[in-house]
Amino acid sequence: MKLIEAVPNFSEGRRSEVIERIMDVFYAQDDCTVLDYHADADHNRLVVTVLGEPESVCEACFSAAGQAAELIDMREHQGSHPRIGATDVVPLIPIEDVSMKDCVKMAEELGARIADELEIPVYLYEEAARKPHRRRLENIRRGEYEGLVEAISEPERRPDFGPDEVHPSAGATVVGARQALIAYNVYLRTDDLSVARQIARDVRESSGGLVNVKAIGLEVEGEGVQVSMNLTDFRKTPIHRVYEFIKREARHCGVGVYRSEIVGLVPREALLAAARYYLNLDGFAPDEQVLERRLQD
Amino acid sequence: MKLIEAVPNFSEGRRSEVIERIMDVFYAQDDCTVLDYHADADHNRLVVTVLGEPESVCEACFSAAGQAAELIDMREHQGSHPRIGATDVVPLIPIEDVSMKDCVKMAEELGARIADELEIPVYLYEEAARKPHRRRLENIRRGEYEGLVEAISEPERRPDFGPDEVHPSAGATVVGARQALIAYNVYLRTDDLSVARQIARDVRESSGGLVNVKAIGLEVEGEGVQVSMNLTDFRKTPIHRVYEFIKREARHCGVGVYRSEIVGLVPREALLAAARYYLNLDGFAPDEQVLERRLQD
Repeated sequence: MKLIEAVPNFSEGRRSEVIERIMDVFYAQDDCTVLDYHADADHNRLVVTVLGEPESVCEACFSAAGQAAELIDMREHQGSHPRIGATDVVPLIPIEDVSMKDCVKMAEELGARIADELEIPVYLYEEAARKPHRRRLENIRRGEYEGLVEAISEPERRPDFGPDEVHPSAGATVVGARQALIAYNVYLRTDDLSVARQIARDVRESSGGLVNVKAIGLEVEGEGVQVSMNLTDFRKTPIHRVYEFIKREARHCGVGVYRSEIVGLVPREALLAAARYYLNLDGFAPDEQVLERRLQD
Repeated sequence: MKLIEAVPNFSEGRRSEVIERIMDVFYAQDDCTVLDYHADADHNRLVVTVLGEPESVCEACFSAAGQAAELIDMREHQGSHPRIGATDVVPLIPIEDVSMKDCVKMAEELGARIADELEIPVYLYEEAARKPHRRRLENIRRGEYEGLVEAISEPERRPDFGPDEVHPSAGATVVGARQALIAYNVYLRTDDLSVARQIARDVRESSGGLVNVKAIGLEVEGEGVQVSMNLTDFRKTPIHRVYEFIKREARHCGVGVYRSEIVGLVPREALLAAARYYLNLDGFAPDEQVLERRLQD
């Protein structure tokens, strides 16, 4: 079954009637399940996580963007989180039987539709970016809504789709595709925070470790210390490689690893990959051999 | 989603029109997927593997038993495989969100229905057995159809449901519940078959090893030797425990293990259990945390 996740962010975290009307769009959509939503009054922002068939998820995101454009006025919006539009950003994430390339195509179609039908300028980001500096969301959001009103006419700030001016109330929207994030923590058998911090530095991309890994060392009340991570591309840098890396570095420091944890959601594929690795399951074909997959023919 | 597997066996492996009419029952059933079927002329037997929602799978098995009773006459049946009826045996297997207890109850209901509506005597076996010696299929099938015609009137051979005499054409049927089997092989880095045989003896239940494991040592053309196994209850005796056991014994023999393989189908749960074990994923809750599971709320 084809499945994608979307995590649309809307610039409303305070007025419950607006939040409800946006959420109703997602609840009303067939073949699309709301996994989570979080409204933050300080950020004045609503973050929704939905999972479902690609067309349904994109349809729901489009309809919700329409609702947000009607109900939110960026000229009056205030909040501590950076934003450029009523529907601020919509990342699409491949989950099952969908490639990143497919998600990029969906992001392009969704973006074009938001631009055409809602007359909102749209920027493509991350994997869907058409200009290298637009891979990073913070570059697109520079100056936020207020700054973009003027800056949008500069050649390098022109949107990928839609008008060369911000929508007066809805602002602009960023649409893109990215990999699923996995929040993954490994616990060490020591109370020495400096060891967790050292291993975090060893493992993370930014200081010379594994690509697609962000890591910090943390103290956890009653549980010693942990290496707390975000894995940003589990297909390329799988959980088990990260775990074995940390075990090896911990051993080098004379410290044991006694458990790990996944915080929140994880695509099934990430765990099947670990099973294949540890069991040395050569030639295993999940599509053919996992019993439940055969239902989906 | 609730899922069970059934592997009904019918006493027809030669007449293609009969095989087709039985298979048509399964193909016509909604929410029920045929994973495999195999007709063997020598055995004169058809083995069907279906997966789906419990009610649908049981409905299909019942309808197919009706077809088999009409189309197969045990008085004329000959074949090398032991059998007592047109629908010889129907094991039900819990796959997802279904307990063994649920499957036992379904086996009882299916058995009672075959007895009541088709007037075929039914025996319950394996996990569904009501008498200890009926756990083993060979005890129920002793004397086969021909012997059972007379023996069925003996108190200890009386069926669990239905008449105390065999159905003249359809014979008798065995219905039950069992765990999914996993066919699992581990390859050793040696050509010495005696090592594979020794490790097979060490690991299998029958010679003092792990329960729920059947094992033999085999030579594999071009691949050295393997320990070839059936795991008969992967929930109690999981794949990773078997793999680690064999790795340890192989090391003891001075031999390496370089790969393993699952032959045919495996329930997803068996692989998730391996991932949890090797990653030391304490407190992981698949129902809550596996993204795709959330779709099924």
